[in-house]
Amino acid sequence: MNPARKMVYGFGGGGADGDASLRNLLGGKGANLAEMARLGLPVPPGFTITTEVCTWFVAHDGAFPEGLEAQVHEAVAALERQLGKRFGDEENPLLVSVRSGARVSMPGMMDTVLNLGLNDRTVEGLARAAGDRRFAFDAYRRFIAMYGDVVLEIGAETKTDHDPFDERLERLKRERGVQHDFELAAEDLERLVADYKQLVVERTGAPFPDDPWEQLWGAVRAVFRSWDNPRAKEYRRMYHIPDEWGTAVNVQAMVFGNLGEDCATGVAFTRDPATGEKRIFGEFLVNAQGEDVVAGIRTPQPISLAQAGGDASARPLEVVMPEAYAQLLEIAHRLEQHYKDMQDVEFTIERGTLYMLQTRAGKRTGLAAVVIATDMVDEGLIDPKTAVLRIEADAMEHLLAPIFSADELREAEKSGRLLARGLPAGPGAATGSVVFHADDAKRLAAEGRDVILVRNETSPEDVGGMKAARGVVTARGGMTSHAALVARQMGKPCVVGCSALEIDYKQALIRIGDRVVREGDPISIDGVTGRVFEGTMTPHPSEVVQALVEGTRDLASSDIARRYARLLEWADEFRRLGVRTNADTPEQSREAVALGAEGIGLCRTEHMFFEGNRVTSVRRMILADDEAGRRAALSELLPMQREDFKGIFRAMGGRPVTIRTLDPPLHEFLPHGEQEIDALAAELGVPRDTLAAKIESLAEANPMLGHRGCRLGNTYPEITEMQARAILEAACEVAAEGVAVHPEIMIPLVGHREELARQRAIVERVATQVFAEQGREVDYLVGTMIELPRAALTADEIAGEAEFFSYGTNDLTQTTFGLSRDDAGKFLPFYIETGILPADPFQTLDQEGVGQLLEIGVRKGRSTRPELKIGICGEHGGDPRSIEFAHRVGLDYVSCSPRRLPVARVAAAQAALREAQA
Amino acid sequence: MNPARKMVYGFGGGGADGDASLRNLLGGKGANLAEMARLGLPVPPGFTITTEVCTWFVAHDGAFPEGLEAQVHEAVAALERQLGKRFGDEENPLLVSVRSGARVSMPGMMDTVLNLGLNDRTVEGLARAAGDRRFAFDAYRRFIAMYGDVVLEIGAETKTDHDPFDERLERLKRERGVQHDFELAAEDLERLVADYKQLVVERTGAPFPDDPWEQLWGAVRAVFRSWDNPRAKEYRRMYHIPDEWGTAVNVQAMVFGNLGEDCATGVAFTRDPATGEKRIFGEFLVNAQGEDVVAGIRTPQPISLAQAGGDASARPLEVVMPEAYAQLLEIAHRLEQHYKDMQDVEFTIERGTLYMLQTRAGKRTGLAAVVIATDMVDEGLIDPKTAVLRIEADAMEHLLAPIFSADELREAEKSGRLLARGLPAGPGAATGSVVFHADDAKRLAAEGRDVILVRNETSPEDVGGMKAARGVVTARGGMTSHAALVARQMGKPCVVGCSALEIDYKQALIRIGDRVVREGDPISIDGVTGRVFEGTMTPHPSEVVQALVEGTRDLASSDIARRYARLLEWADEFRRLGVRTNADTPEQSREAVALGAEGIGLCRTEHMFFEGNRVTSVRRMILADDEAGRRAALSELLPMQREDFKGIFRAMGGRPVTIRTLDPPLHEFLPHGEQEIDALAAELGVPRDTLAAKIESLAEANPMLGHRGCRLGNTYPEITEMQARAILEAACEVAAEGVAVHPEIMIPLVGHREELARQRAIVERVATQVFAEQGREVDYLVGTMIELPRAALTADEIAGEAEFFSYGTNDLTQTTFGLSRDDAGKFLPFYIETGILPADPFQTLDQEGVGQLLEIGVRKGRSTRPELKIGICGEHGGDPRSIEFAHRVGLDYVSCSPRRLPVARVAAAQAALREAQA
Repeated sequence: MNPARKMVYGFGGGGADGDASLRNLLGGKGANLAEMARLGLPVPPGFTITTEVCTWFVAHDGAFPEGLEAQVHEAVAALERQLGKRFGDEENPLLVSVRSGARVSMPGMMDTVLNLGLNDRTVEGLARAAGDRRFAFDAYRRFIAMYGDVVLEIGAETKTDHDPFDERLERLKRERGVQHDFELAAEDLERLVADYKQLVVERTGAPFPDDPWEQLWGAVRAVFRSWDNPRAKEYRRMYHIPDEWGTAVNVQAMVFGNLGEDCATGVAFTRDPATGEKRIFGEFLVNAQGEDVVAGIRTPQPISLAQAGGDASARPLEVVMPEAYAQLLEIAHRLEQHYKDMQDVEFTIERGTLYMLQTRAGKRTGLAAVVIATDMVDEGLIDPKTAVLRIEADAMEHLLAPIFSADELREAEKSGRLLARGLPAGPGAATGSVVFHADDAKRLAAEGRDVILVRNETSPEDVGGMKAARGVVTARGGMTSHAALVARQMGKPCVVGCSALEIDYKQALIRIGDRVVREGDPISIDGVTGRVFEGTMTPHPSEVVQALVEGTRDLASSDIARRYARLLEWADEFRRLGVRTNADTPEQSREAVALGAEGIGLCRTEHMFFEGNRVTSVRRMILADDEAGRRAALSELLPMQREDFKGIFRAMGGRPVTIRTLDPPLHEFLPHGEQEIDALAAELGVPRDTLAAKIESLAEANPMLGHRGCRLGNTYPEITEMQARAILEAACEVAAEGVAVHPEIMIPLVGHREELARQRAIVERVATQVFAEQGREVDYLVGTMIELPRAALTADEIAGEAEFFSYGTNDLTQTTFGLSRDDAGKFLPFYIETGILPADPFQTLDQEGVGQLLEIGVRKGRSTRPELKIGICGEHGGDPRSIEFAHRVGLDYVSCSPRRLPVARVAAAQAALREAQA
Repeated sequence: MNPARKMVYGFGGGGADGDASLRNLLGGKGANLAEMARLGLPVPPGFTITTEVCTWFVAHDGAFPEGLEAQVHEAVAALERQLGKRFGDEENPLLVSVRSGARVSMPGMMDTVLNLGLNDRTVEGLARAAGDRRFAFDAYRRFIAMYGDVVLEIGAETKTDHDPFDERLERLKRERGVQHDFELAAEDLERLVADYKQLVVERTGAPFPDDPWEQLWGAVRAVFRSWDNPRAKEYRRMYHIPDEWGTAVNVQAMVFGNLGEDCATGVAFTRDPATGEKRIFGEFLVNAQGEDVVAGIRTPQPISLAQAGGDASARPLEVVMPEAYAQLLEIAHRLEQHYKDMQDVEFTIERGTLYMLQTRAGKRTGLAAVVIATDMVDEGLIDPKTAVLRIEADAMEHLLAPIFSADELREAEKSGRLLARGLPAGPGAATGSVVFHADDAKRLAAEGRDVILVRNETSPEDVGGMKAARGVVTARGGMTSHAALVARQMGKPCVVGCSALEIDYKQALIRIGDRVVREGDPISIDGVTGRVFEGTMTPHPSEVVQALVEGTRDLASSDIARRYARLLEWADEFRRLGVRTNADTPEQSREAVALGAEGIGLCRTEHMFFEGNRVTSVRRMILADDEAGRRAALSELLPMQREDFKGIFRAMGGRPVTIRTLDPPLHEFLPHGEQEIDALAAELGVPRDTLAAKIESLAEANPMLGHRGCRLGNTYPEITEMQARAILEAACEVAAEGVAVHPEIMIPLVGHREELARQRAIVERVATQVFAEQGREVDYLVGTMIELPRAALTADEIAGEAEFFSYGTNDLTQTTFGLSRDDAGKFLPFYIETGILPADPFQTLDQEGVGQLLEIGVRKGRSTRPELKIGICGEHGGDPRSIEFAHRVGLDYVSCSPRRLPVARVAAAQAALREAQA
């Protein structure tokens, strides 16, 4: 790096070298400190070492660039001039804090060292200057402990050990017979300091550094090093933060909240981060230093009287330091006006004077996000575009989940009712009796019982049971297992991958360590955090669901539902991408329409095959020896499928409905257990062995790559014929009712143009017949899923036969990676944890690989048919980052489960708005 | 079509409008007739309607283009002028033959109508002109029957019926009490004509067309129509002939081989098509018309005395018509000199005068192809390049297969010993006792018994048994099933997919309909044609194998082996592509070197895991609870693997050896049967239920997409460590013996650069250790299989970590198509039969889809690393069309099973030569 390059940016005293726009260079904390200084807010002066220095440091094995030392010396000298103190001065020493600060807030890195600059001599100066020897040694022992911990890395030696500094403090308190730190006298603390320094010698083989400059450089180095520690790296991986960003270091003159009863330190949000309410919210401690608030040793006090429920005995800041409180309110207001967002601030009050140590956009719940965004539009602070951009799209779904109250959850965990943790696969909360089999779930639910279906994993046979259950728990499987996918589409609370559960189906019980939960016992699951509890709890549908989905609450009566709807209206104005839903039933369709679906992007006909006793006809069809037998069974299914489609067409009221023809391999519809095979043999009147042999002959080594999709429709054209007939007859009949109908018949798993051509020919032939029979025509399209690499690569060919494409990104991800969703549990989590893969490709579209196929398919498909309609109907259709990609490559729509629709609408709007910004 | 365009090309009378270069326009037959006419050979005059007319006809629903009628009329008029006869003339009628003739010879189309132009009046003229009334009516009845069959499509009404014309002929013969057609008198034939015409009225509702022009246009139309009949379409699909080529129609003046004892008709090859010997070879009939030779009613006579074994009583042409024979010899010589290839000719002798009706390159066996090609080079007729281009590459493998004699096969089939037909998956012939289990195969083979392993399908566990067996039969699976792949690599006779076999493992027997073959019963399999016989037969290793592979015969003693070696030397001169082999053992490696391998392209380490009792260590490793347990088991495997590699390095003598690290999912190494699990539990000393549960937990829904390849090496780095150590220790030790060693370590199933980077780091770390321990370094490379679409799409990334790529086109085809090789049997044959797919993508590389990924991978890979070495090691590495593609996209080498090496060498040379030609 050029030594003349500016590596150090000063702030404080009513001005700063940098400002908020330099976030990339100064980190969030440094940029905002500079910005606050420029605004004239009371910020203790200091300086920021840039992220560029960190990047250079990492690239050069921990060396500092030439020129840095001089610039830091100059910045410290400026501080000294401004404050009239000197770094290392034995009379009136300048003390500083050292904090990391990356472009985005990032846990896992070295956080803070306070009181840096103290040693055996300066501590005496501090004691004199403050007129408080106890305070000075308290600061000194805190400094050694923090520095020892984060810079010298002196920690517990084994997992069961306590922190060694804490241990020594506790020992001293026991010796002195006191309970609290503040009961220790100055001489006690002095002894503790000596004790601490002895510990440092023992553990590092060197004395504690008493040169303030050595202390400062050690702390800077520790911050930079911590950029690459495992926790920080993992966090970056999870949140897709590039390694190259680096962190800045903020060095700032100390102010003290622990100089007496007119001192304090605290944190505050400018609005309530849980509810979004427009009032300051936070907590503080009198006579304390920053970390005391977090440490939880003393109970902090609320900021405002309102926050304390009007109870002045809670000693809110508003009551105990009304002037500082007024000043804080004023600053909070200025910060919001300036940043146009809710802020999360840190402050210290030294002898009655308020100092601001940090400001940043405050994290908030989904509920608060919606409230704050809409409020700020009404306040004229932001425009609707900013409001939409401000929402984390995923949060839109949180407002739809049924919920347990936070109190109840806390209580349950405290009383030892937590059974297992797993992955939060389906949102919301549910409670009910344990059942292990889908049939039991259906039977008991029919009797009005609330049940939770608990299985090692689920299969399509379990869909009915999952629907009947209040919630689903699996011991195996990941976020994209069958259980997770189906549950999310159903909006069903679901926790998957609870590996602590050992399910014994035979004895009908679950073992968790030495605890046992039996069939029929009540459990409760929290799909938001992925926890399973013993016993019953009380879930409630959210207000938004009551008002927008269930219609059990008047929209006018729900402030939050109105705000939610308003945000979605804005999003709809801004987005270009269409939004459809994956829905297989009229109920799902109605829910989806309520949540903004502009059509159905994927209706899976096979899910209907499990309804009621249809599966018997399906099985008869599968087991038929010849086409005639298959046709006979199919003719039983025809009227049922037709009614299904009529229900869906009516529910969708004129919106396009994409219906996929039969996709899964036929063996998925057959029973595998001994008893079930016996029962089916009896039902069908065929010898048991014949049936078992037939089932065996349909088994496949790799069903994912087997006889499924259009391969079924091509080998058994009569299946496609029946389905096309059911769709088109339903369309004609509903059209006759005066409802517009736009069926789009989608052929799955096409890899070669000719596969589609033949299926298309069948559909067209059936259409001609049906229209003649019904004396009525309806518009319909024939298109295909693009879910095989070959389909994307030959999209120009396939577009010759297809009026639309729908990317089945689940299967496309499986084939592009050669990765079975069902089996990935054995290594995919490890791959993601250890950074071999940057993210789970089933959750977030792999833009680098699978994305190339999307782009190729769009380009080639439109080269043949420029008007080709292209959507996405995999799980990625509801993932915000994937939606942004879909927008960017020019898709026409995304399709997702009903409850993801609000997410998709917001994400689509954000994609359009960000594109316009760029 | 422009009516002025030339649609009709005349020939005969010492000249022609066209010549042999117009094959695309005139078809093979027409072009060669023109060429022969130009050479002044005795060709009856005629004309050819071009293939363009056919294409137009097909595109216009069977209409003829404007202008055609006039050109045909003019051509017929020219014939009339030349021959002094008139079409439809009642005195001296011109009769013609009408034959189809496409660019390449193509069965399934309408073949021939002879004697066209006859009716009740012209027949009388013919009788008078020939001075033979019986001849004239014989010609007439033949004409009606042929025309009725192929133009009017009057055939048997049910499958069990006879041809209705034949039926009437037979009835007449019974009535007349005669046995042979020639015993019927003129008046009998006259009655037969009437009978035939009555049949035509009955079946078509219209009289037989007696206008010669109507006859002619009907025949032309029938030829064009037959281009699109199902058999012709299927043939085109099998041989990749475009539908657009179309067929020509040849109309030619009749000459008669049935005008008396000085007349004859026959076919001949200019050299022996079975052995390649340089002597004319063929058969003929005296006093007969063309179709009589084929019909097989009379036994034809040989052409030459030599062919008759010097037996003049066989009445060869050389003896009965010495002048015509001499003329035929002379013409055969001229044709070979002209075409510079062995010819297959048709001729007719009319009253002592020889007429040539067709010439074309003659089909020949692999043996004959080699003999003829080398002979012709020696004769100076062709150069080595042409010789190499002339060989059908696949034929090179046929000369390596052990064989049953043709006599024995014919005899076996005649005597009802044929049990089943299947797919010819492994070349050659084998005989032995039926066994059903790999262990039995090994045990009995060790006792010196010849066994045939018969299974529903095979798995890696069976490899040892397959090796021990003389041959393998499976009831299920296709040409790329496990059994087929392994058998082909072993060069083991194998018939797969014999669906007629019902194997009952429990009772240890096979049912074929109501026949039963028991364990221990002898069977014989012919892998060349895919047949399974009851009883023993006698296979012999071919001469080429004895001389080149086994070394049991001196090369000098085998003419054919020397010729074979010579052809391969030529091929090696011309090819650019390298040729490597897939080999897992020193024996295979030695065989491959003998057959020209320049290195190993794929050495599958897992096959070694099944040798001897190693599988116990493998299983111990898999079932270990922790890394320490795995390491202990791996340390048992290390010395064994090291010895394996040493053997291979020595056998390959300095050639590069690509070794793939462990690829299959671990559960493939575990037993699944109850008894085997019991036995293993006892052996490992673990509770049976624990073992069963562990095996169950390793099961996968889609093992092809599961925990395998580098996913194993990344989750269990100690496996890669052990294998890298075994490879590099072996390399150092063999290098110490003075043998050059070039190991190339190949990481399988990489989808993301990082997967390879981590494996590469392990290999490099181990290499540093091993080289330090051994005090010696060897050159080695680290590279990867490209077998997932994502790997090809991100080849630029991956090439950053890879020094070579090897396309695993088997798996790449599976993932690109989303098609499991193991399961494709349920629909892939149907897809190919019905033309949904043009070919089996596992046999012939899908250039359109998978090929795109190859091209993308080559382009992107070399963009990062221009010197990147790229090969192919899937089964396609031995497929000529795929090899041509590999050449075209710029790969460095192909790798195939040892016995396919000669095929690959020739195919690679052909690809280079064709490219140079183009």
